Amino acid sequence: MNNFNFYNPVSIIFGKNTIAELSKHLPQDAKILFLYGGGSIKRNGVYEQVAKALKGFDYIEFSGIEPNPSYETMMEAYEIAKREGITFLLPVGGGSVIDGTKFLAAALCLPEGVEPWGILQGTVEVKQAMPLGCVLTLPATGSEMNGNSVVSRKSTHEKLSFGSPFVMPKFSILDPEVCFSLPDRQIANGIVDAFVHVMEQYLTIPNNTPLQDLWAEGVLRVLIDSAPVVMNEHQNYDAMANFMWSATMALNGIISRGAIEDWSTHVIGHELTALYGIDHARTLAMVLPGNMNVRRTVKGDKILQYGERIWGISKGSKDERIDATIAKTVEFFESLGVPTRLSAYDLKKDTCEKVAQRLAARGVVHFGEAGDITPEVVEKILANRL
Amino acid sequence: MNNFNFYNPVSIIFGKNTIAELSKHLPQDAKILFLYGGGSIKRNGVYEQVAKALKGFDYIEFSGIEPNPSYETMMEAYEIAKREGITFLLPVGGGSVIDGTKFLAAALCLPEGVEPWGILQGTVEVKQAMPLGCVLTLPATGSEMNGNSVVSRKSTHEKLSFGSPFVMPKFSILDPEVCFSLPDRQIANGIVDAFVHVMEQYLTIPNNTPLQDLWAEGVLRVLIDSAPVVMNEHQNYDAMANFMWSATMALNGIISRGAIEDWSTHVIGHELTALYGIDHARTLAMVLPGNMNVRRTVKGDKILQYGERIWGISKGSKDERIDATIAKTVEFFESLGVPTRLSAYDLKKDTCEKVAQRLAARGVVHFGEAGDITPEVVEKILANRL
Repeated sequence: MNNFNFYNPVSIIFGKNTIAELSKHLPQDAKILFLYGGGSIKRNGVYEQVAKALKGFDYIEFSGIEPNPSYETMMEAYEIAKREGITFLLPVGGGSVIDGTKFLAAALCLPEGVEPWGILQGTVEVKQAMPLGCVLTLPATGSEMNGNSVVSRKSTHEKLSFGSPFVMPKFSILDPEVCFSLPDRQIANGIVDAFVHVMEQYLTIPNNTPLQDLWAEGVLRVLIDSAPVVMNEHQNYDAMANFMWSATMALNGIISRGAIEDWSTHVIGHELTALYGIDHARTLAMVLPGNMNVRRTVKGDKILQYGERIWGISKGSKDERIDATIAKTVEFFESLGVPTRLSAYDLKKDTCEKVAQRLAARGVVHFGEAGDITPEVVEKILANRL
Repeated sequence: MNNFNFYNPVSIIFGKNTIAELSKHLPQDAKILFLYGGGSIKRNGVYEQVAKALKGFDYIEFSGIEPNPSYETMMEAYEIAKREGITFLLPVGGGSVIDGTKFLAAALCLPEGVEPWGILQGTVEVKQAMPLGCVLTLPATGSEMNGNSVVSRKSTHEKLSFGSPFVMPKFSILDPEVCFSLPDRQIANGIVDAFVHVMEQYLTIPNNTPLQDLWAEGVLRVLIDSAPVVMNEHQNYDAMANFMWSATMALNGIISRGAIEDWSTHVIGHELTALYGIDHARTLAMVLPGNMNVRRTVKGDKILQYGERIWGISKGSKDERIDATIAKTVEFFESLGVPTRLSAYDLKKDTCEKVAQRLAARGVVHFGEAGDITPEVVEKILANRL
């Protein structure tokens, strides 16, 4: 087990009718910016619940944060927040709204004259941020309980991330009932996203972390078991609650402490979103099986453990078991209606080269848990999923 | 799953040589009280490491905090802390030193004239506390990552507890190497203590918490697997690290969110410690099997799940499986040299009555996860372990 730090001060408020508690968690004297996305919260009643809880508070709204939140949109929010003297940020939505708000929170506290895009390029250090508190409406990214953020720049087709403890939410409200009205596609994406978050932290190289392994496997098990129920019965509270809590636990840092992490599926997937606008989770569903296949030497021991403990695969040669485990993983994603091949998006061999070249151009040339992913390996991983 | 809150802002620093990082986490201008127990830290090198890290800080020492920290001792520390203008508390030790310090932290911030014992009696509300940061030397209680504290009053033979988010440590440093020199008895006690902490939160009534169940079972599994290794090879870093991390995860709140908790084994066990001075963990090892046996109706479903998933017991009638599961639990505790019967301490039938009467006298007459434990049931539970 590697040495590690763990610090996660996010206050979670979980359960039925918890949005009504929002006012208890907001600073009384704050000037609040209530941020949301495309308006689905107006159709499912969440907007009303939040507005009711905000009665008596001084707040303004900012809507229109898109999936894969853009730098351009968040800089509009930045101007408004500066002009209006905002002191607290309240994102209400899924990972995109929360991620965009985290970037905004950090940008608002930069010294005068520093270009906020540097936060994402890694050239500007985040030393403080405006406080934020979330109302989560879509279980998927885990953004509600971590300090990570991914933001895209439309003008350059770049999708970059940053992380800082300063942008961890002060609180996050998780009411599984607000997910009842989610479209199938978003639920399926959320399940895949959370699943792959676990895999990035778990399906790497054994490092004497038995508890972390069992906890990661626990999240995978609950996601797999909840998946058919939440897909078929959106209003099943028990299944939705378990899915929602698992998605949060998938990426709050606890399952990876002392373990070796990968994140290469995300690095490659982000390029597919940046280039073709494919849903984040759907890029992961394509890349992960290719990653497992091509990098079966690096990941072999953990693939066998995952295959046996999660899918009951214990017979056959090592390669046969790895093949069967990848097949089961693909089958799970496909059972949710999530494609696992590039052909589903009419993408061909040139995409594999293009993605490898884009990463190489940014200097991303030796990544993954063993530093073994060169541009050539990126091409192979994607070519495996044509 | 019940609605729940989760908030745990303790910063964990885990791994080899991490005590050297202590100075980074202490407030520069603090007047520090460095608290410890009976002096074992002077024999195992921890005292030296801490003193070295404290170089340049303004601090004084307070030693002599006993196992089952006493109100009387902590009030001595209270007088010193008041007199010396202490602003930060640094407990270095196991759960007793940390628990005692938490009480002190809360006591030091009470309004003038309020009797600190009220904190433990539940008549005084904790609204603030002096900040504390820990160096843990004994994996067991989980006190390093929660807001719980148990303190005994020698003069009245009372052992009472309180909990408050205000007494959660600002940080806790966990270096598994400092455990290498622990005596067998303390390691065995620590394993049993952590194990029973999980059971109090897990072995209750099913409540649609599959992830929490799997995580609880994960902690039990790692404790069981680490136990023979740490008992036989105190210097096995990997096993000690896994034991240490599991003991912390056993009681930081995460495995019980939304679940139904019990804690009756602790309530009964505390009386045995208060009356006869038996080690805390050793009281739990006696009470838990009796609790499982006598309350097999309330706990039946979860005992079967635990028996099957942890001990592989899946054959026989319900009662046969429950009996076999209790036998396995007893065998595990005994394998660590921890007795599971009152006779090991020469305690007889009158003890069962006495404990029931003491609890009844304090109004503790309907407790446990189903409120089903009356004084009569307390007697039965203990009589089952004569």
